[in-house]
Amino acid sequence: MSQTEVTAGLLVIGDEILSGRTKDLNIAATAEFCTDLGIALTEVRVVPDIEDMIVEAVNALRARYRYVFTTGGIGPTHDDITADAIAKAFEVALPINDQARAMLEARWKETGTEVTNARLRMARIPQGADLIVNAVSAAPGFRIGNVYVMAGVPVIMKAMLEAIAPTLEGGRKVESRTVSAGVGEGALGDPLAEIQSRYDDVKIGSYPQMGHTHILTHLVLRSSDLTRLDAATAEVQALVDGLHAKKNITLPKEPY
Amino acid sequence: MSQTEVTAGLLVIGDEILSGRTKDLNIAATAEFCTDLGIALTEVRVVPDIEDMIVEAVNALRARYRYVFTTGGIGPTHDDITADAIAKAFEVALPINDQARAMLEARWKETGTEVTNARLRMARIPQGADLIVNAVSAAPGFRIGNVYVMAGVPVIMKAMLEAIAPTLEGGRKVESRTVSAGVGEGALGDPLAEIQSRYDDVKIGSYPQMGHTHILTHLVLRSSDLTRLDAATAEVQALVDGLHAKKNITLPKEPY
Repeated sequence: MSQTEVTAGLLVIGDEILSGRTKDLNIAATAEFCTDLGIALTEVRVVPDIEDMIVEAVNALRARYRYVFTTGGIGPTHDDITADAIAKAFEVALPINDQARAMLEARWKETGTEVTNARLRMARIPQGADLIVNAVSAAPGFRIGNVYVMAGVPVIMKAMLEAIAPTLEGGRKVESRTVSAGVGEGALGDPLAEIQSRYDDVKIGSYPQMGHTHILTHLVLRSSDLTRLDAATAEVQALVDGLHAKKNITLPKEPY
Repeated sequence: MSQTEVTAGLLVIGDEILSGRTKDLNIAATAEFCTDLGIALTEVRVVPDIEDMIVEAVNALRARYRYVFTTGGIGPTHDDITADAIAKAFEVALPINDQARAMLEARWKETGTEVTNARLRMARIPQGADLIVNAVSAAPGFRIGNVYVMAGVPVIMKAMLEAIAPTLEGGRKVESRTVSAGVGEGALGDPLAEIQSRYDDVKIGSYPQMGHTHILTHLVLRSSDLTRLDAATAEVQALVDGLHAKKNITLPKEPY
């Protein structure tokens, strides 16, 4: 690795990966993401839901690499201790974050979900951190220093990576476009695969949104070639417009 | 992790995993292997083909865990430097091993493969190491101290794990139970934490399943104490049954 390279470390957190109960998908996704952005993913560690081990790994990685990404352990159950460990690593408090709470409560209101102490754990954010938007299930990730704390569920992890992509200094300038569709992945899959097959220099990702009363899928396109990116985006938009017209769908105006 | 547990660390070596070009399969395979043997896989690291990083990671892991497994970097090309790094970590020489050379030459004779310097690299084994038989492609792995050096190709790695299995001291046999819930983690979090607090000898994990048309969460309990495991499982099942009754939920009969 050369001195000028932008480097990253990845920390995967969770007993379920180490027991074999869950097959990790986030290492490969993060590796591809970094490569696309011209960032050199240089080390990965997987640790259990043990606070001291998370703290030690985060501190080792953040001292060594330009960026650290973590995945896992930010859900509502007692074994979700990543936020606690990150707060400890940075020696800051872990209060309920008003903005995070508002994001969660807005989604819960829409779905009629009860506010429980377990759910409110997800609004605890280390002091001084910025939120990372989670369009899929509302519970946000966060950035503190050079550490980006994200979800373990692969589709949410990927959506969060897309959310932070524009803020990262990579070796390659990558832009992204989002097309919102009021139809599910089943209707989009085949025609989208056809478009992707003709644009191997554009990365097309599909992110179904959960917890709404209506179907919503965000299609995110990413490339370092703006001309190709805009051409592919126009094709995806035309595909979605066609499906909307056919099914008489109008997207709600509210932001997510 | 209790003091009596038999622990292991895994070191995955290879640029191709970190670039996303190759999807790792060995973490999941090793995790399952360890769980089956009652060994607690406690940490995984993935490092590139950089000697200093391999040496540092091997030394950190072998000091900390009963067993260290490594995978990758023992092939015939210039970037296969795992044997060199292990020899350096243990401060021993790396001569051509007569037994390893005989194994390779017997296979090469059979297949009419030319003996080249590149191929003979695979017979270099750290002084004092025992060989690990490779039934698949003949090139052996090796054990030195508590470190087991194996191939990166998944089918060979798995075969090598099977080869060393009888030589490993497993921990107590750990059993697991799964309770399926038709409710999300938000509803389960608080009462589950309460049960977990009374069973510190039973590990309770919560695994939300996505991509279904209905909500489904698998609760996995794991312990080496069958009596305690069954008692905790009964409590979790009662909790789930109560939530199902309250919300009038019936789980679909099909497997997931």
